[in-house]
Amino acid sequence: MRENRLRSLWREDRTAVNGWLAIPAGFSTEIMAHAGFDSLTIDLQHGLIEAASMLAMLQAISTTPTVPLVRVPWLEPGIVMKALDAGAYGVICPMVNTREDAQKLVEYTHYPPRGSRSYGPVRAAIYGGPDYASQADATIVAFAMIETAEALDNLDAILSVDGLDAIYIGPSDLSLALGCRPVFDEVDPPVAKAIEHILDRASAHGVQAGIHCGDPKVALARAAAGFRFVTVGSDARFIAAGAQAAVAAMRAGLHPPA
Amino acid sequence: MRENRLRSLWREDRTAVNGWLAIPAGFSTEIMAHAGFDSLTIDLQHGLIEAASMLAMLQAISTTPTVPLVRVPWLEPGIVMKALDAGAYGVICPMVNTREDAQKLVEYTHYPPRGSRSYGPVRAAIYGGPDYASQADATIVAFAMIETAEALDNLDAILSVDGLDAIYIGPSDLSLALGCRPVFDEVDPPVAKAIEHILDRASAHGVQAGIHCGDPKVALARAAAGFRFVTVGSDARFIAAGAQAAVAAMRAGLHPPA
Amino acid sequence: MRENRLRSLWREDRTAVNGWLAIPAGFSTEIMAHAGFDSLTIDLQHGLIEAASMLAMLQAISTTPTVPLVRVPWLEPGIVMKALDAGAYGVICPMVNTREDAQKLVEYTHYPPRGSRSYGPVRAAIYGGPDYASQADATIVAFAMIETAEALDNLDAILSVDGLDAIYIGPSDLSLALGCRPVFDEVDPPVAKAIEHILDRASAHGVQAGIHCGDPKVALARAAAGFRFVTVGSDARFIAAGAQAAVAAMRAGLHPPA
Amino acid sequence: MRENRLRSLWREDRTAVNGWLAIPAGFSTEIMAHAGFDSLTIDLQHGLIEAASMLAMLQAISTTPTVPLVRVPWLEPGIVMKALDAGAYGVICPMVNTREDAQKLVEYTHYPPRGSRSYGPVRAAIYGGPDYASQADATIVAFAMIETAEALDNLDAILSVDGLDAIYIGPSDLSLALGCRPVFDEVDPPVAKAIEHILDRASAHGVQAGIHCGDPKVALARAAAGFRFVTVGSDARFIAAGAQAAVAAMRAGLHPPA
Amino acid sequence: MRENRLRSLWREDRTAVNGWLAIPAGFSTEIMAHAGFDSLTIDLQHGLIEAASMLAMLQAISTTPTVPLVRVPWLEPGIVMKALDAGAYGVICPMVNTREDAQKLVEYTHYPPRGSRSYGPVRAAIYGGPDYASQADATIVAFAMIETAEALDNLDAILSVDGLDAIYIGPSDLSLALGCRPVFDEVDPPVAKAIEHILDRASAHGVQAGIHCGDPKVALARAAAGFRFVTVGSDARFIAAGAQAAVAAMRAGLHPPA
Amino acid sequence: MRENRLRSLWREDRTAVNGWLAIPAGFSTEIMAHAGFDSLTIDLQHGLIEAASMLAMLQAISTTPTVPLVRVPWLEPGIVMKALDAGAYGVICPMVNTREDAQKLVEYTHYPPRGSRSYGPVRAAIYGGPDYASQADATIVAFAMIETAEALDNLDAILSVDGLDAIYIGPSDLSLALGCRPVFDEVDPPVAKAIEHILDRASAHGVQAGIHCGDPKVALARAAAGFRFVTVGSDARFIAAGAQAAVAAMRAGLHPPA
Repeated sequence: MRENRLRSLWREDRTAVNGWLAIPAGFSTEIMAHAGFDSLTIDLQHGLIEAASMLAMLQAISTTPTVPLVRVPWLEPGIVMKALDAGAYGVICPMVNTREDAQKLVEYTHYPPRGSRSYGPVRAAIYGGPDYASQADATIVAFAMIETAEALDNLDAILSVDGLDAIYIGPSDLSLALGCRPVFDEVDPPVAKAIEHILDRASAHGVQAGIHCGDPKVALARAAAGFRFVTVGSDARFIAAGAQAAVAAMRAGLHPPA
Repeated sequence: MRENRLRSLWREDRTAVNGWLAIPAGFSTEIMAHAGFDSLTIDLQHGLIEAASMLAMLQAISTTPTVPLVRVPWLEPGIVMKALDAGAYGVICPMVNTREDAQKLVEYTHYPPRGSRSYGPVRAAIYGGPDYASQADATIVAFAMIETAEALDNLDAILSVDGLDAIYIGPSDLSLALGCRPVFDEVDPPVAKAIEHILDRASAHGVQAGIHCGDPKVALARAAAGFRFVTVGSDARFIAAGAQAAVAAMRAGLHPPA
Repeated sequence: MRENRLRSLWREDRTAVNGWLAIPAGFSTEIMAHAGFDSLTIDLQHGLIEAASMLAMLQAISTTPTVPLVRVPWLEPGIVMKALDAGAYGVICPMVNTREDAQKLVEYTHYPPRGSRSYGPVRAAIYGGPDYASQADATIVAFAMIETAEALDNLDAILSVDGLDAIYIGPSDLSLALGCRPVFDEVDPPVAKAIEHILDRASAHGVQAGIHCGDPKVALARAAAGFRFVTVGSDARFIAAGAQAAVAAMRAGLHPPA
Repeated sequence: MRENRLRSLWREDRTAVNGWLAIPAGFSTEIMAHAGFDSLTIDLQHGLIEAASMLAMLQAISTTPTVPLVRVPWLEPGIVMKALDAGAYGVICPMVNTREDAQKLVEYTHYPPRGSRSYGPVRAAIYGGPDYASQADATIVAFAMIETAEALDNLDAILSVDGLDAIYIGPSDLSLALGCRPVFDEVDPPVAKAIEHILDRASAHGVQAGIHCGDPKVALARAAAGFRFVTVGSDARFIAAGAQAAVAAMRAGLHPPA
Repeated sequence: MRENRLRSLWREDRTAVNGWLAIPAGFSTEIMAHAGFDSLTIDLQHGLIEAASMLAMLQAISTTPTVPLVRVPWLEPGIVMKALDAGAYGVICPMVNTREDAQKLVEYTHYPPRGSRSYGPVRAAIYGGPDYASQADATIVAFAMIETAEALDNLDAILSVDGLDAIYIGPSDLSLALGCRPVFDEVDPPVAKAIEHILDRASAHGVQAGIHCGDPKVALARAAAGFRFVTVGSDARFIAAGAQAAVAAMRAGLHPPA
Repeated sequence: MRENRLRSLWREDRTAVNGWLAIPAGFSTEIMAHAGFDSLTIDLQHGLIEAASMLAMLQAISTTPTVPLVRVPWLEPGIVMKALDAGAYGVICPMVNTREDAQKLVEYTHYPPRGSRSYGPVRAAIYGGPDYASQADATIVAFAMIETAEALDNLDAILSVDGLDAIYIGPSDLSLALGCRPVFDEVDPPVAKAIEHILDRASAHGVQAGIHCGDPKVALARAAAGFRFVTVGSDARFIAAGAQAAVAAMRAGLHPPA
């Protein structure tokens, strides 16, 4: 089976650089895939993306060695398994708040006897290879998002679930959960403290920690702190930032301004 | 009928700032449309865009006051009229090389008696308004692209065609035509000279001149020189530039590099 | 944040006129949006519509001031939040049968601390404005559908849920629940009585009441009775009615009939 | 090969009732197809429809006995043949202005030796049957649109082209061509006279005449006058008319109006 | 209401031949539908298919008398009802493991009073007929998939649920559940024994039994054993098998091999 | 620039095995691409494929080393250049009947100074590499289809056009042109003779010859005769053949037949 580069990087204690996809188009995805990210995450939750676009985007990523990941909209078996059957090499699951939630995530992402994933890797076996059935459990990565007050309360219970490879922090939701402003990078002190705490506990449990960042500087600082999966930038944000900068430059330079 | 802001700007001798669309998705288009460009051009020629995406993108642009334009793949009546019926307020037509080409462009974009545009503004009248039939000819803008050696030879013949509102320079094709490297901004001297010549002749004929640029600095210089329609940046380039910069920053900062 | 016209109308005790969308196409949606409804509801439940079409349709509605609403297929957090992130200004949720159901609906449609909505208004903030995070809870409207015997039993418990803005009656389902024929307008007496009862209790709780109608006459009567949100007509029904009438007129008039 | 009901009706000197499709959706098409039209025309010219939607719409029509037709965007061999390969049983071709144009239309719609249609009825043979190759020429119908001053001048030359089955009048374009307002039904006197003239000449040449109508009354009058193919109504118009009527009824009846 | 041929066959104790669809395209579906299967199942679970493609595929199937079925991704009311509203004449539901699961399946697929299916057969009534509301419960077929150890434990409890028409065996998942290799046809002895057991118990309860097969020989043996619904082949497998055979024949025959 | 394996094979006088694509879906394409063909041709002419599907299919092919080709609908510059910009490494152009046609094909597929291809390889440079501008002319392959009586008459004139890399024979169209039945493999004697003649003349001119086949046996014989590009099988035919065989086996084996 094709290797999962995330696991290869982690074996060497290196940090994976992840890009984020919110635009439902194969072409924008292919541009992102050729930019050199270690992995790309198709965001079915907050992105404007659904199952049909996910397929096209997974194919676009598969034109490169970039690892394809999917953030599912919710902890539901149908969509988790659909993302895997379509060839995702990992799922990021939002709102994992309890030990039971984490156990379900592991269950949905593993075949029996460990889990209850239904068998039918219709595209995944084309992408992964003919030994997919026997190797998928050890190849695919499941990330549980820690982003609520309840999850903080249950942190050790979640982290101790057998088969949970990684957690992922959404700073915006975590901020709202702690009564702070929903931002990515410049988080308020209670959020900064909670992030530090989550990282510490994940490390203690041998679980890889990932986090959503907006800026390379912050992402590098996160990596230096011990995060082994850092998201930096999204297709939608690159367009917005690029377009706004271009228009601003033009408005500033035109005489008279149009 | 809803005004065409390009014409309004030109009446005040101001330069329109145009953005370029190569990604076939309504959402990326909506992000671009909210960035504040005066107009956006859906590129059916070199963009990965066809008629179905064009419709979705025209609707996305219509959520803002940005003027919707379409670059057609070729000087063919079917697609020129289809773009207009779908609500484009202007068409940019590649490879207008002769006076006859320019006359055809005017013909396809105007109703009888001036032209031969077929009547059926199925979406255009919803976008433009109930008086579309009588006002369309005076509202819509047709740009003839000047980008070949043949077009340079026929420049005055083209520019003197009655009803031709504007020309548009594609520096890449013009460069190839003159035996130079196909670039946008840092054009070789023969191309720079040709661009200057085209602008001069267009001004002499009272025809607006537009040009494709990659960078705001160049676009501002073009505007200062007299171009009244400057393209600066595209959705695809903003993603590529943003993604490459983010990955480069991460690779430079990670120890060891992943 | 852009206002929600439903709330504005309700502040003046006026009734909103809602149209219904079952055809998965941006162009038919744009025609409906230009017809002057106060709001349009994209029906993800019984309509032939899914997430990708919803996005295109929300963009088509956004070309006008019409308020965009979504009926979700079921009370599930993934799709409720996805509709809101895509820019819906309200959700209509089927089969709210218990107080717990109503509480979940409120929870899914509000950010912490009131609810558990996950943060990521990727298109909603473009549509609503930069203050979306702080204003969304007070702007968006959640409708709980009252359409089963169980819901009638729990009516006051449902209506007393804090944060529930409105209820919506589906006369067809309510009819089936009461052992009657599934119709919109000419409901059987037990259904008529139940509708009256629901309206009374909603008014008593200060909750806005909406209802699905087939005909303007019935919709006007509902408005006069106190409903402040009345649906009248759908894209699919307008086509079916118009086409059947045209064909019938032709068959009646042709000699010999074809 | 499955019969072409248009030809069957014409053999009995009866008039076919045609519906028009401008919305790119299989579901709206299926509603139209179940309304009982003799044929439906997918409008690739002024409709918001392209090749991908055409396929879905042809399949939707094929769920009923309704005859599938396509109006192509222009007299170009690629799209004419593509429509036929996809299963269209007739093409309506705009802007047939000369005898040469009419000859090309016949050529593109017939296999050698009569024409130059390329062989590959990939879907057409599934729809039509295994004897498609030998029967297609005698089954499919080609309509030449007569809608310009030039076409009026060349009318007899066009009508005398061997293999041209039918002509179709677009009253809007014909009106513009004659310096009149672009309308369907209430045409100005010069247009009325031209329509009468075209019908007369078509009858004289044994060519079936069709015409675009907006209202059943007009369509019935056209049929009575001798037109054997009358279009009455479109999906887009049925939605617009139904929605505008419903909203108007509501605005008139609501107190205070919302 | 249009008959459900599955029920007609079963009344005569005959076996239905089912085909499987994993490719999200109307055209491949139409080819399959014209091949003469009694029914075709659109696989929303492991197939690369979602709701938008399901609609196009249901329309493609409706061009023939083939019975349209849908395998839903999971036992969730939203998608079960959506498949039925779109015109599916049966649903195959994975992972029915308990009596409660089976009861939910019956509930979601029947209108009140038997079930809780919400009323709105927007396309289903077009496909099925105007008496859909009263006849759907007796026409549509619900298959519960028996494919886990838990389901085997609860087999009689599941089979005795009133209104459960049929069960369907997925040999791959059943194999994994029993610690065997996930295959279709050449199942290991424990799986063979379990399949026999399920068939026996289904017969005892008067429930029809169906099973997924890869090869006609196996399917015929299953039919001979008493299965009354056998799947043989899928669009994706036909392509893979045909393409691999063609390439292999070419590689074997070319000198030198390319 | 990424090599074109067709040219590599030809340099070694080996025959390329080509597969054919008529189904507009990325997933079926990916299955075909993984089957090991040297190249795959997306058929925009007779296939049910248009520009949007072409893009998704080119991406699906790009997940493997298979060479992506496109058959364009007609000899028109817009679509020829669009296919190349999207990343096709070759175009097959139907109905090249004259020396002038062949010259146009060469012109449309080469940049100045040899041709008139417009510059904008928006996806092609991502697929091919950063030196696309300078290497494309020498990498891309243009096939002229020889399939009419006129083309046979002009054969040497066509074959002597500088820059024409290859010709491709469509036996069906060639058969019709010669008054024979439109088949692929079991061609009538006049067609067999014409095929032999075309191959001879192509060899004499140093132009590679390709041909459409239905069966590996015939394709191998063609290769042995000197054809260096043989098409064998298509996605649509593999489905049809597989499905028909499976249904036939079931009908033959079931008692009583269903």
